[in-house]
Amino acid sequence: MTHSDVLIIGAGLSGLHAAGLLIDAYDVRVLEARERPGGRALSHAFANGDTVDLGGQWVGPGQDRLYALIKALGARTYPLWDEGDHLVAFSGRLRRYRGTIPSLPLHVLLDLNRLLARFEAMAKQLDPARPWAHPKATEWDRQTVGEFMARTGFTARAREMFAIAIGAVYCAEPHELSLLHALFYARAGRSLEALISVTGGAQQDRVHGDMGGLARAMADGLGGAVIYGAPVQALCWSDEGVSAQTPAGTFTARRAILALPPNQALGIRFDPPVPPTRDALWRRMPAGACIKCVAQYDRPFWREAGLSGQSVGGPAPVRVTFDNTQAGREAGQLLGFIEGDEARIWSGRDPMERRAAVLDSFAAVFGDAARHPLDYADQDWTAEPYTRGCYAAIMGPGVWTSLGARLRDPIGPIHVAGTETARDGYGYFEGALEAAERAADEVRAALNPPK
Amino acid sequence: MTHSDVLIIGAGLSGLHAAGLLIDAYDVRVLEARERPGGRALSHAFANGDTVDLGGQWVGPGQDRLYALIKALGARTYPLWDEGDHLVAFSGRLRRYRGTIPSLPLHVLLDLNRLLARFEAMAKQLDPARPWAHPKATEWDRQTVGEFMARTGFTARAREMFAIAIGAVYCAEPHELSLLHALFYARAGRSLEALISVTGGAQQDRVHGDMGGLARAMADGLGGAVIYGAPVQALCWSDEGVSAQTPAGTFTARRAILALPPNQALGIRFDPPVPPTRDALWRRMPAGACIKCVAQYDRPFWREAGLSGQSVGGPAPVRVTFDNTQAGREAGQLLGFIEGDEARIWSGRDPMERRAAVLDSFAAVFGDAARHPLDYADQDWTAEPYTRGCYAAIMGPGVWTSLGARLRDPIGPIHVAGTETARDGYGYFEGALEAAERAADEVRAALNPPK
Repeated sequence: MTHSDVLIIGAGLSGLHAAGLLIDAYDVRVLEARERPGGRALSHAFANGDTVDLGGQWVGPGQDRLYALIKALGARTYPLWDEGDHLVAFSGRLRRYRGTIPSLPLHVLLDLNRLLARFEAMAKQLDPARPWAHPKATEWDRQTVGEFMARTGFTARAREMFAIAIGAVYCAEPHELSLLHALFYARAGRSLEALISVTGGAQQDRVHGDMGGLARAMADGLGGAVIYGAPVQALCWSDEGVSAQTPAGTFTARRAILALPPNQALGIRFDPPVPPTRDALWRRMPAGACIKCVAQYDRPFWREAGLSGQSVGGPAPVRVTFDNTQAGREAGQLLGFIEGDEARIWSGRDPMERRAAVLDSFAAVFGDAARHPLDYADQDWTAEPYTRGCYAAIMGPGVWTSLGARLRDPIGPIHVAGTETARDGYGYFEGALEAAERAADEVRAALNPPK
Repeated sequence: MTHSDVLIIGAGLSGLHAAGLLIDAYDVRVLEARERPGGRALSHAFANGDTVDLGGQWVGPGQDRLYALIKALGARTYPLWDEGDHLVAFSGRLRRYRGTIPSLPLHVLLDLNRLLARFEAMAKQLDPARPWAHPKATEWDRQTVGEFMARTGFTARAREMFAIAIGAVYCAEPHELSLLHALFYARAGRSLEALISVTGGAQQDRVHGDMGGLARAMADGLGGAVIYGAPVQALCWSDEGVSAQTPAGTFTARRAILALPPNQALGIRFDPPVPPTRDALWRRMPAGACIKCVAQYDRPFWREAGLSGQSVGGPAPVRVTFDNTQAGREAGQLLGFIEGDEARIWSGRDPMERRAAVLDSFAAVFGDAARHPLDYADQDWTAEPYTRGCYAAIMGPGVWTSLGARLRDPIGPIHVAGTETARDGYGYFEGALEAAERAADEVRAALNPPK
């Protein structure tokens, strides 16, 4: 039995940041289910020694906490390759374009712009700390993004492009998502445009090395406070504190921070049980579905054709690609995402079959050279038992307005962090850090009440 | 370490029935988390000794397995009180009516009939064993029942009445439900009309005694095979069999049947983990929200005013009531349901406050005498840690068509039962029995392969 002041459950970026904020003043333990820190930050080493992030990897304007963390760890950022022409697959043909919005027939483009503008105008009105409080929150929450698209978009092609953007941002299908949730998510990340943009947007910068390495550095900075292989099986709690049962022993503390995706909280037996509305909320926050796929080539051959490596709308399973080539390396990397329904189709399949399908997608857009990578890796986040989906939890119709107002409230001595409790940067590492700061503030206030 | 042929996880009606089917030929153990059998069948004793079901209680035409079970246990049924006038609250006034469809202004009634007819016509086309296989499955699955109502209903009042029916059947709001799921559920229970009807429908009959008592009789019939206080914390599995860890010990077997609501499967650590698509499906099958409320009076006083005790549309929180008076008893009972968003509002509240609100609802419909019951009981199923909602799991948009086709497949040596895997009577005890028979068939075939 190990006693401390604060137990942090989950050594993702949120748990690690909360631990770092609290560790000088309190005795802190971090319980991590896996044998590694980082959560949705995960490094992979290719055969040639290059590392690549199979989890989150980007940082962009407005993500001040994440830039500050990178800087504090002595790391540096560099921009994602964003030169040359992007490609949009449309009516069986590939067209080149620049900027965020693909080159499409004029009436389709105007319709798509109109859809985006309507969405942004609504999102801008929300207070990301209280999306349920907007006068139209109920109206927006009772419809899906699919309904919004069907009612607002005139052309099937604009709706299809909008759906691809939705897939890329939320890893979900438009009909799965509450419109209010989608608006909130965009607002909490500045705007939908910021979330789909490279330069000036959420895909602007990367770190030298990888995000998985940053997480390891954060964990190392905590000394021996992180206990690995310690999934919390039961969490007993009262006004006096908490007691966490794990295969690595029982840990008690005065306060706890639950720094997990909501779906993972369902695997913990709480004693006493959490309030029914919290349980119902967690049960209505499954994660999106995403398989991240990276192919490494001897060189970024698409640049020779004046291409950026960015494409949208290519043949399934990969609908969105990026040039993921690392700064200062010769090897070129193509990055593709399989999202939503496609991810569910491909997550059960044989890895070699999936690899072949992804390379087919790449080749359809960038030519046959894409079929012959030096190396390949993918990560199906829905298959990870301690994550079960990416990038973040989604909410279907009705969840925010019927259950969401209590999302961030402590449960007795148990505070909640994780990007899914963020008011700023929900679904991103930025949100993981923001939520950690709020939860650490709460714990400090609880342990040092004003006299 | 206890070894047997078959482990059944969950002693609800599905698990008990599967055990009964298998126990003569095999060594069977049933692991039950609670200290009682029955799952969503639950007896409560009033102070005067009368018992009442705070879980499922009805049986109706088409539920042949449930009638057969009742008969086999030597129990008898009697009809729910269905005489006198029903009441519908409408524009602040109470109107009397007979039959299933409330008396409403003619244009509203025609619109409501049209809504119901459209819904029934679609439901009738589905194969409840394979709802995802209908040619329009994707189209229907991508819309919510709320969308269907908004597009099909012309009058706000007809839509409101339809929404109350949806709440009463699914314990959910129209915008939470995939239209395909609602259609499937209705089809699997014969029709929406059957599900909302008393005489000739799913509320036609009750058992003398109570359903909770039937579950106890089923468990007693299994001798010592049921182990209580044994929530399964981990379930290891391979082609050779399963091993279940519980606080009551470790149990191994050649085959297992998971006879739980899907949301409860999420509390079990599977080793190896279940396939990602099954996990994703379970995470998208939260249960509806329902609080069942029963007030007992010295007599069924409403009958003296020529009323049936059935009402619809009264003031929140209770929107639907029934005369629950037991055959051969003097005491009268009013039964009311708090459903969907209202259940979420009331589930966290003080029990006395909830009691007062329910009696206010009753009094608004049946007069001040309803304020003074001899006894009162309610059951918030969302607060039950081993149930977490009623009557059954619901599916939001997209779930059936992207993930539902594998709902009933075994996972290695683990077969699945429970009403949520039923092809017939989904959400009802009938479905629990149907699913048990399918799972028991599968286990028998696996243990006795044809030579």
